[in-house]
Amino acid sequence: MRIARIQQDGTNRLAIDAGSGLRLVIDTDLPDDPLAILADPALTARAVAAATGPAIDEAAAAFRLPLAVPGRIFCVGLNYADHAKESPYEKPNYPVYFLRVDTGLIPHGAPIVRPLVSTHLDFEGEIAAVIGTGGRNIPMETALDHVAAYTIFNDGSIRDYQFKGPQWTLGKNFDETGPLGPWLVPAADLPPGIKGLRLQTRLNGQVVQEANTDDLLFPVPEVIARLSEAVTLKPGDVIATGTPAGVGFARKPPLFMKHGDVVEIEVEGIGILRNPVRDEVR
Amino acid sequence: MRIARIQQDGTNRLAIDAGSGLRLVIDTDLPDDPLAILADPALTARAVAAATGPAIDEAAAAFRLPLAVPGRIFCVGLNYADHAKESPYEKPNYPVYFLRVDTGLIPHGAPIVRPLVSTHLDFEGEIAAVIGTGGRNIPMETALDHVAAYTIFNDGSIRDYQFKGPQWTLGKNFDETGPLGPWLVPAADLPPGIKGLRLQTRLNGQVVQEANTDDLLFPVPEVIARLSEAVTLKPGDVIATGTPAGVGFARKPPLFMKHGDVVEIEVEGIGILRNPVRDEVR
Repeated sequence: MRIARIQQDGTNRLAIDAGSGLRLVIDTDLPDDPLAILADPALTARAVAAATGPAIDEAAAAFRLPLAVPGRIFCVGLNYADHAKESPYEKPNYPVYFLRVDTGLIPHGAPIVRPLVSTHLDFEGEIAAVIGTGGRNIPMETALDHVAAYTIFNDGSIRDYQFKGPQWTLGKNFDETGPLGPWLVPAADLPPGIKGLRLQTRLNGQVVQEANTDDLLFPVPEVIARLSEAVTLKPGDVIATGTPAGVGFARKPPLFMKHGDVVEIEVEGIGILRNPVRDEVR
Repeated sequence: MRIARIQQDGTNRLAIDAGSGLRLVIDTDLPDDPLAILADPALTARAVAAATGPAIDEAAAAFRLPLAVPGRIFCVGLNYADHAKESPYEKPNYPVYFLRVDTGLIPHGAPIVRPLVSTHLDFEGEIAAVIGTGGRNIPMETALDHVAAYTIFNDGSIRDYQFKGPQWTLGKNFDETGPLGPWLVPAADLPPGIKGLRLQTRLNGQVVQEANTDDLLFPVPEVIARLSEAVTLKPGDVIATGTPAGVGFARKPPLFMKHGDVVEIEVEGIGILRNPVRDEVR
């Protein structure tokens, strides 16, 4: 199953694919909030039963962020050995976390904005876990019980700003550089801890990243457990699990994204997150 | 003038000091939101005129966070030369930003919680700017127009977690380690860009940090302008301007905070942010 938010005639609507393609949910009394739908089995059943509207033309639909109210955005850096190796950093012996803010998020299909101040706009294909049940000091053994769903994230980065100093914050937080979506896939519909999933990033159709989640240095349960040692996690929090090798700045010559490009991230069992790139207009 | 939120009989109330001490605002139709009050001169006038309630016993009052809805929490690191020198980092040539999340915030008077997993709980006295008017690509020349008010921040840090890897995120985001308050002081009541203010941190009455904001490497207008080159700032966003030398982990021997301690940060023209310290209870 996959559950999306789509704008139609100025209104956000739910769309669900329960096996026969993505269809509009015709019960408009349901909350416009995929996470709330997934949190309550009765609501899920009701939404699935009401997914009898017109089939969505996925290429033309106006997707919204898959979360009505995105929580905090926790990202894990250097979480594939081959990406750590291509970076200026050592392979970590503890998960490396950084944060993104809401103003960076854009939905599937919306343009990634390359700011006028930089040409170093880079892609990072990732899988994101969405927290359904919050908690603190969550043990590794039960950490996966806290994940409601997974989606895809493009951790778009402005590399020269990322490396202006010792913290990556600026380069990871430019407006409209972080696509998230297109939909949520319930954790129960994927292998536990998204083990063994293939991830591929394509820039203008060319494969630039190719990996398998089996190669995550710190798998999802550990990423959640270690983070929750510090932070009480809340429903709606997003945890981006890290990107594999192949990013643009580590290539010789570097490969950055520019106006007119199209970047796609495909994750087995989840789908494709696709976004065009455009220049900032002031 | 200073404007606070105080809990009385289970309700959050406004309290204002417009020259005759902190007094309860008796007009309960006003929004429980100091920033909203300051954003509208008519509301400010109405709130000041209604600050005729009982005088607040500041030592006994239950202060709440001074923002009803805190925005994002942007922090500037290494922003005093003497603190950069005592740290493992070089003096930055560009502002260094990092982020904190909401679960770390506590009001004036609430205990800072030392987690069971670490004894390395450190203080960082800072002044925080609160954004009143949002914006992107804000020029340095007009950046101060975007600040509604200032308050005090203790950027409480769990040092061993902060330095587990290349990003400080974990050590800066433990639950209930970041006191903010006690009140907002309108920017217009302070020197422009908080120039020339004395800041002092005291641990159990002993002075541990002493500085003047004239020594900020990157003054407030530059901190705002550079940040807004990446991020659209929004009303309620908090920008903590950095801490001076004297933090506990850089001392020989190190001086960390422990159960029963009391830490105070005093800033000229703003006030005193005081918090006890207690151990985490599971």
